[in-house]
Amino acid sequence: MSPVESGGAAGAATVTDAADRVHAFDAAIALAPQGEGEWHGHTSAAYANMIGPFGGITAAQALHAVLRHPQRLGTPVAFTANFAAALADGPFVVLARPVRTNRSTQHWIVEMRQHDRTVLTATAVTALRRDTWGATDVAMPGVPPPHEVPPPARRGRVEWIHRYDMRFIVGGLPPAWDGAEGHNSRTQLWVRDHPARPLDFTSLTALADVFFPRIWRRRATMTPIGTVSMTIYFHADEAQLQATGAGYLLGQAQAQAFRSGYFDQTAQLWNEAGELLATTHQVVYYKE
Amino acid sequence: MSPVESGGAAGAATVTDAADRVHAFDAAIALAPQGEGEWHGHTSAAYANMIGPFGGITAAQALHAVLRHPQRLGTPVAFTANFAAALADGPFVVLARPVRTNRSTQHWIVEMRQHDRTVLTATAVTALRRDTWGATDVAMPGVPPPHEVPPPARRGRVEWIHRYDMRFIVGGLPPAWDGAEGHNSRTQLWVRDHPARPLDFTSLTALADVFFPRIWRRRATMTPIGTVSMTIYFHADEAQLQATGAGYLLGQAQAQAFRSGYFDQTAQLWNEAGELLATTHQVVYYKE
Repeated sequence: MSPVESGGAAGAATVTDAADRVHAFDAAIALAPQGEGEWHGHTSAAYANMIGPFGGITAAQALHAVLRHPQRLGTPVAFTANFAAALADGPFVVLARPVRTNRSTQHWIVEMRQHDRTVLTATAVTALRRDTWGATDVAMPGVPPPHEVPPPARRGRVEWIHRYDMRFIVGGLPPAWDGAEGHNSRTQLWVRDHPARPLDFTSLTALADVFFPRIWRRRATMTPIGTVSMTIYFHADEAQLQATGAGYLLGQAQAQAFRSGYFDQTAQLWNEAGELLATTHQVVYYKE
Repeated sequence: MSPVESGGAAGAATVTDAADRVHAFDAAIALAPQGEGEWHGHTSAAYANMIGPFGGITAAQALHAVLRHPQRLGTPVAFTANFAAALADGPFVVLARPVRTNRSTQHWIVEMRQHDRTVLTATAVTALRRDTWGATDVAMPGVPPPHEVPPPARRGRVEWIHRYDMRFIVGGLPPAWDGAEGHNSRTQLWVRDHPARPLDFTSLTALADVFFPRIWRRRATMTPIGTVSMTIYFHADEAQLQATGAGYLLGQAQAQAFRSGYFDQTAQLWNEAGELLATTHQVVYYKE
């Protein structure tokens, strides 16, 4: 066993041990209040990406500041996070302020900073939701249940991937990085936190960023990428998240266009009962 | 001719006369600089909606402040506008500040205010774009060309609709408001400014909000609605917008879920050459 492999195993063991007491996700999004609308947090080694942390955990940390705010009205309906710079490993500050509070909706501006420089901007809309007529326009695709879909034989090398249980149905990582261009970039997978954790708005936010880059799928080429902006629309209320519990979500993602260094992704997340919990979009920088 | 009809005709004539000199759209988005990152604007009667202005024109006004800013780097890649309150007819203030400028990307926070209250928040990402590999994952649907699609026999009653030439291919306004629920909410239409105007980032922003509410299409019921948040990803650069000129865009929009007072919409805008210029999403409040 090489020193590197030994170190990796020890690191993984630490995360697992910690999960017995506090789930790695809860440890990662923990925020310490510093006064009106200001929190201190810290990047998490358990959710490290190639450069800086997994964007989904950063987005979850930013939304967490809104959820922790004593003046918050209702639950999230829309959340947009713009990734202004890769976070450095270490502490960060989150500022969340409600800029407009109406009878049933509230609008938020969020900034995350390191060393007095902005690393993330975000806006959120929270709302008191009511029972109304409802319908789904995009039904869950017919797929085999999670226990019939095996985990992938090989995984990416970044740490955060080990925090998720992913079972690809369509469009897993390319079998070879041979540049064989495909006809579309669709992926379908069952996914949940690993170890399993009851779903809430913060973990759903991170799960919305769980798809590997669509350009890798379409091109079978591992070009460097970085998410620039990500939006989530929450269709679920707290009762639906509670009913979903620690079950799997079916995630489906597809790009619409790749052009001049940026591609987009549109995605849906259903629970096992077939309820569409969230729809999400992002635009991603790619190098070449 | 009733006094009401006479008044309406006179109003329309004024708009047409003005278009000989300055297009109604350019008049609507005009901003007067008030110092570093601050502009004054005014709502436009030509783009009036049922309550307050057409959201697309408000979004375009907000983006215009970014485009006018002397420190702007590159062209828009992502833009999110959150509608915090219906604008009152009259003046408004737009504040646009670049919070992070990198080598090739820039992040913006925008606020629009009336009487010192926030009526809109927005974030934008602008970027210098480069030639890269590119592809389209969602091809333009096969539809008849614009000149073979007649304008609708009847139109909505709000003023802003007359600023657009709309030719519905699939999913026009329901033939009757009889509550006959459909199976999906898809609409396809050819659309451009009326009178025709060369496309730019501001007019493309407004066009991204041109779809009538998906819930009206799905339910054939005119329930009150209001867009809460809207995001646009710009795939086009300036050269593609110039090449598109004053041609028609093919717009396609569909909801994914309607639940507890909010529904989402995902939409695409292609030019006549079949290039996907923008993809856009919004979440919309509905009353019942």
